[in-house]
Amino acid sequence: MRYGVIGTGGIGGYFGGKLARAGHDVHFLFHSDYEYVKQHGLQVNSCRGSFHLDGLNAYSSAADMPQCDVVIVGLKTTNEHLLPALVKPLLNSGTLVLLIQNGIGMEDDVQKMLPGVSIAAGLAFICSTKIAPGVISHEDLGRISIGNYSCTDDSKIERLVDDFNGADIPADEMEYSEARWRKAVWNMPFNGLTVALETRTDTLLSFKPAEQLCRDLMREVVEAASAVGVNGLTMNFAEKMISMTKGMVPYSPSMKVDYDMHRPMEIYYLYTRPIAEARKAGYVMHKMEMLEAELKFRQYSYLKA
Amino acid sequence: MRYGVIGTGGIGGYFGGKLARAGHDVHFLFHSDYEYVKQHGLQVNSCRGSFHLDGLNAYSSAADMPQCDVVIVGLKTTNEHLLPALVKPLLNSGTLVLLIQNGIGMEDDVQKMLPGVSIAAGLAFICSTKIAPGVISHEDLGRISIGNYSCTDDSKIERLVDDFNGADIPADEMEYSEARWRKAVWNMPFNGLTVALETRTDTLLSFKPAEQLCRDLMREVVEAASAVGVNGLTMNFAEKMISMTKGMVPYSPSMKVDYDMHRPMEIYYLYTRPIAEARKAGYVMHKMEMLEAELKFRQYSYLKA
Repeated sequence: MRYGVIGTGGIGGYFGGKLARAGHDVHFLFHSDYEYVKQHGLQVNSCRGSFHLDGLNAYSSAADMPQCDVVIVGLKTTNEHLLPALVKPLLNSGTLVLLIQNGIGMEDDVQKMLPGVSIAAGLAFICSTKIAPGVISHEDLGRISIGNYSCTDDSKIERLVDDFNGADIPADEMEYSEARWRKAVWNMPFNGLTVALETRTDTLLSFKPAEQLCRDLMREVVEAASAVGVNGLTMNFAEKMISMTKGMVPYSPSMKVDYDMHRPMEIYYLYTRPIAEARKAGYVMHKMEMLEAELKFRQYSYLKA
Repeated sequence: MRYGVIGTGGIGGYFGGKLARAGHDVHFLFHSDYEYVKQHGLQVNSCRGSFHLDGLNAYSSAADMPQCDVVIVGLKTTNEHLLPALVKPLLNSGTLVLLIQNGIGMEDDVQKMLPGVSIAAGLAFICSTKIAPGVISHEDLGRISIGNYSCTDDSKIERLVDDFNGADIPADEMEYSEARWRKAVWNMPFNGLTVALETRTDTLLSFKPAEQLCRDLMREVVEAASAVGVNGLTMNFAEKMISMTKGMVPYSPSMKVDYDMHRPMEIYYLYTRPIAEARKAGYVMHKMEMLEAELKFRQYSYLKA
């Protein structure tokens, strides 16, 4: 299968880079890093083994890219409105668009922008960040779950999972809605709290009342998921997420990196949307509402400056 | 009546200073400012008219102070454990101890530490801060409500209210529990949020989602009050508090000043205690719980440093 990568940052650069290193035909769209990568290649510093890719298929414009069987989207959801223009040139009749993004509701929205296109969700449990032009730093974890949203060709999802596993990326398939909400159990507490409290995951979990707050927020996600009809999540899973995070490298989630760089944060899909979906189903995510408002205030404070 | 002031800061210095200026017999306990005030007097910069008090009755030790009819406590609640030792030397058989402090539950605790002593709550709606040794800055508002907790001599409360009013301090009497919870409607959102979001009241209320968060937090106070049996509070009062705060000078509440100075914050009586009392009565203050945890984390971060 031919792969296209839209958004070659910590996510697209890592997963696309691993596929390319394993010999797959991968085509990367770059924005500000294009010239640098053309000259110097893509460097992936990884806890699973670092590698360098020279002479990769790099593009500065989606219009120049070939049609692909799978388009991996690693773009921030703050740029979701750009997706149709970036993805359309890569589509053939059966292209699968894999959204490796954080949040709830992106597939619904992207499907409306790209009617008839096959879409899947990619849930990446990974600590990976672009730390310089053309340099990805993969610090911990690294597995991905695929949730099929609208692809009628099951074999394609299977081939995708096989390609990932063959490229040293532990991958599996998971029911779409459960996969999205499962990821939210980690994303919603840790992205927002590391911003609101200006800290890292390890410092947060080193203080009992803050750990309890993470747990309370996770309980809201578990209960919200249940309210919208996703019943596979439990507080036992939440406890595992807390333990796993304690075992992780000290980490600044992607929203904290955006905050530190004074970039727009992914508040809408990470907070506003799941909070609204839960409320529509009759469940109020009280603490998440507060976190959402705090994040909006923080962003307002630096974006207006 | 003879007055003693324990804790001569933004609160004790202002109210005691006004009483002294009006000719009352007032005795002030100072801590670190004692030498300065002995030499230079007490300066009150006030939006209602500034004044200076020279040769005031200043003490560096409570043991040197005379017995008083009213003891005004302007101490931070973080020092509540010091109260018995500081107050006892001033007590006569009928002394009224007036706690002008922020929070819920102090009177219960102080009564246990000082059994048999008459206690009242002082609810100060005032923007007043000690800005330098012996210098109080009163920026806005200035009224006080007295809530009788355990004084059996009603006439004493009346005389106190009269003395305040006669000293140009608008004062009234209010049912004790309602008075404490009424003040909490302002205190709980604005003290905590200005710390959590590192901002001031005016900036907070200039951004709609943050104003809505203040309103949501106020609703929790109104509903908690109702749960513990205090029914006089309404969302209409909360809206008045928001409007009043919009009309106020840009203000850093006392907890924000403590935060900026890296001093312990009054988390226990302002958050932990009312949250616990509401929960005991069957009401969960979800967002306040989150704010409490955030404040604890912030304090932990700078106190351990």
